[in-house]
Amino acid sequence: MHVDSELDIPLYLQIYEQCRKEIIEGVYPAGEKLPPIRKLAEELRVARNTVESAYRQLAQEGFVASKSGSGYVVEKLNLDDMVFAANINDSFNRYADHEKAVLSSFPEIPEKKSYEYDFSYGNLSDNAFPVETWRKLTTDVLYSTEIADASRYNDNMGDFLLRLNIANHLRKTRGVHCFPQQVVIQAGTQASLQNLLTLFDPAKDRIAMEDPGNDGVRLVFTHNRFEVVPCPVYQGSQAFFDALTHSGARLAFVTPSNQFPTGTVMPVQGRQHLLDWARTNNAYIIEDDYCREFRYNVRPVPALQSLDTYHRVIYLGTFSRALSPAMRMNYLILPPELLKQWTEVFAGYYSAVPWLSQVVLRRFMERGHWDKLLRRTQTHNKRKRELLLTALREHMGGKITIMESGAGLHLLLGVRDERSQDTLIVEAEKEGVCICETDKYWIEKPHPLENYVLIGFSAIDEDRIAPGIERLAQAWFG
Amino acid sequence: MHVDSELDIPLYLQIYEQCRKEIIEGVYPAGEKLPPIRKLAEELRVARNTVESAYRQLAQEGFVASKSGSGYVVEKLNLDDMVFAANINDSFNRYADHEKAVLSSFPEIPEKKSYEYDFSYGNLSDNAFPVETWRKLTTDVLYSTEIADASRYNDNMGDFLLRLNIANHLRKTRGVHCFPQQVVIQAGTQASLQNLLTLFDPAKDRIAMEDPGNDGVRLVFTHNRFEVVPCPVYQGSQAFFDALTHSGARLAFVTPSNQFPTGTVMPVQGRQHLLDWARTNNAYIIEDDYCREFRYNVRPVPALQSLDTYHRVIYLGTFSRALSPAMRMNYLILPPELLKQWTEVFAGYYSAVPWLSQVVLRRFMERGHWDKLLRRTQTHNKRKRELLLTALREHMGGKITIMESGAGLHLLLGVRDERSQDTLIVEAEKEGVCICETDKYWIEKPHPLENYVLIGFSAIDEDRIAPGIERLAQAWFG
Repeated sequence: MHVDSELDIPLYLQIYEQCRKEIIEGVYPAGEKLPPIRKLAEELRVARNTVESAYRQLAQEGFVASKSGSGYVVEKLNLDDMVFAANINDSFNRYADHEKAVLSSFPEIPEKKSYEYDFSYGNLSDNAFPVETWRKLTTDVLYSTEIADASRYNDNMGDFLLRLNIANHLRKTRGVHCFPQQVVIQAGTQASLQNLLTLFDPAKDRIAMEDPGNDGVRLVFTHNRFEVVPCPVYQGSQAFFDALTHSGARLAFVTPSNQFPTGTVMPVQGRQHLLDWARTNNAYIIEDDYCREFRYNVRPVPALQSLDTYHRVIYLGTFSRALSPAMRMNYLILPPELLKQWTEVFAGYYSAVPWLSQVVLRRFMERGHWDKLLRRTQTHNKRKRELLLTALREHMGGKITIMESGAGLHLLLGVRDERSQDTLIVEAEKEGVCICETDKYWIEKPHPLENYVLIGFSAIDEDRIAPGIERLAQAWFG
Repeated sequence: MHVDSELDIPLYLQIYEQCRKEIIEGVYPAGEKLPPIRKLAEELRVARNTVESAYRQLAQEGFVASKSGSGYVVEKLNLDDMVFAANINDSFNRYADHEKAVLSSFPEIPEKKSYEYDFSYGNLSDNAFPVETWRKLTTDVLYSTEIADASRYNDNMGDFLLRLNIANHLRKTRGVHCFPQQVVIQAGTQASLQNLLTLFDPAKDRIAMEDPGNDGVRLVFTHNRFEVVPCPVYQGSQAFFDALTHSGARLAFVTPSNQFPTGTVMPVQGRQHLLDWARTNNAYIIEDDYCREFRYNVRPVPALQSLDTYHRVIYLGTFSRALSPAMRMNYLILPPELLKQWTEVFAGYYSAVPWLSQVVLRRFMERGHWDKLLRRTQTHNKRKRELLLTALREHMGGKITIMESGAGLHLLLGVRDERSQDTLIVEAEKEGVCICETDKYWIEKPHPLENYVLIGFSAIDEDRIAPGIERLAQAWFG
């Protein structure tokens, strides 16, 4: 055994590691005494405390036991299995072959596929984020007296003033009526729904969903073992309500202001029927108002929640469509009865949303930046939609059917020669154009929109829309 | 009907709102035609398009239908239930009395109780957060080419380079062996466990927990309908392993490096037994290494995962103990088999952790700030602990029993006159001292530590410790 005071490792640690190694290798078998402290200290020319620290560590970890009068004695251990990884090659070799195969299948850096023309849905354009404002407000918050909250667990319902701002904003723009206390800040649609489901019972409560509908949401329901009942939105209002009435559902997930993905708006009679259904069946309606900011031809349709005198609507809103999908902030607005249950259930929970994001967003809203951003995004998206529709008419004319209703951030496109959507997507990809499937939105298959694809316009830059559609037309029609 | 071009409201909207009001009030009953567009336009001195836009909106919402040759005809609606909230007083009056009571019970601004001497557990001291560094790195990120990711949904496993940094850091400091791919960035212990539970089945899989143990974690298990089997840690190793062996559990949640809340360290034989148990029973061990950075007398005990050749350990780590509990960032390290399942289950999910937090943290780690912060926090906490122990000995001497083991951010304190912890807490509060209960950590009751309280030292400032303990001694012993 030796120590080297030139090394960057504390002396007692060097001693500890060598002893441990020798115990594992059997140089000091079970029952054997370690060298007396005084003797080893003299030998290694270190202080007795140094050796004692090393021995104490070994004792703490159970390698040796301190026996008065006997010194430190090695314990009996099953050492065959005790392997300590020294470096990454060692690490890798410790894995069995099937495990190595699993790991090898994961790429080192995730592939970020990039397309010349990106008509995907969900992302925003590269320069959408209000960088300078966010930077400035972040600095303001970090240098304010609120900074003490960075060191704490804060209100698990979210920053109160942020909730107030959201409540006020929604009352003005969507007719949603709620108190700030009813607003719960969450970390994304799926996370918020997962939490909401904690208030329900998969053994008893079914969930009715629009078909076609949001596949990401459906995943959360099914993973949490809830039975999902499809209610067709593509066969007329009656078919939808028949399915709903017979569903026995406790929850209905709907997108009444802009059906996702077909785009239709639920007329006011339908909304009233939905509310009546909920009241009659002691059910709740989850209204996903995801695209409320973006209606281009006409004024936004008030939220379903604005008609809800029975307090059966759970309102879902997000910041992902206008501010940033990467911020991971959305909110639920709970009717009073559910609010009570929620606070009881989540009383011992911590929020999943960072304090800093919330407080910066609150200031962003308070100072009018949110309203400004919405107006700018609305104008921008309106222009993009017009460019898209014009380009589609110009390059594809009578060969396609367009399904959209002057709102949202996408449209559905059917090609009239009955090629499958998979074919259409692959052909587009070959020419550097990214478009999306619609298959995944359907529960009941086969479905009537087999050869429809989804064209999004939130991500693509304005000046790439026309050339992109021209390229798509070439890809499809030569 | 009239319009006012001085108002900040678009003219067509003013017309829309008045028409809607009159329809609801029955001025235009079902079957009645709205005034012809040309006529109303002349009357109001506006463009025909303006009136047409208003009528189109009403049609979109189902109030009227456009009939060729007949103009716009009012539809039959159930109008009794259709109330549109105009202001907050209206909103409040729409609630039934029992609902108003619910809302009134929620305070406008949540109470932030503040104590003169805060010995609570969980929060950090007010100035713990690295403000200037975080500000600078945030600015760097916002003005880098990475900013395009602010507009996207990113890798749901988390920022790859952050995962790499975490894997490297843990290998060096905890002996944890893993590849970056196995690291999953999550939004807090409870959120990560909730997600993990999706891979298991509450109908079949029991969860063994240390008793006493982490109550916040237990909440997640029980809320997700998993049966929790208590395994006593206060009656010796044998009792723990007997309970575990008979539990039939599929998961065991343990804190081997620093048992929470008792502080004991699981010796290496125990760790080996635990690993053997997992292998034999096709079970998994969730190792919550929450306090790994803070050991004061001796070198940190390597993580259980470092001994785990069977790949049964799921490692939980957090940034809440040293950086900030308000950032809401932690991680899971999954063994290969579970990693595979996880990626399949969560393939359609979005991350709950903001991109910006992750990238700033990654740079924070890459530039050595994390190591520096840990060292500084370690030194600081060590000093606080010493001050605390000294003050306790000085002011309470033989009247108390201290339970701690040179690690972590708290200790347990038993008062020898058998006052209940509730009494001790109330008496402390009266004198402005905040301390915590231990009752909530126990599953099986009554328990042997009835008159023990928890004293934390992460939140309290260094110079308040001694006066705080002096005050506490006065409160308890006069």
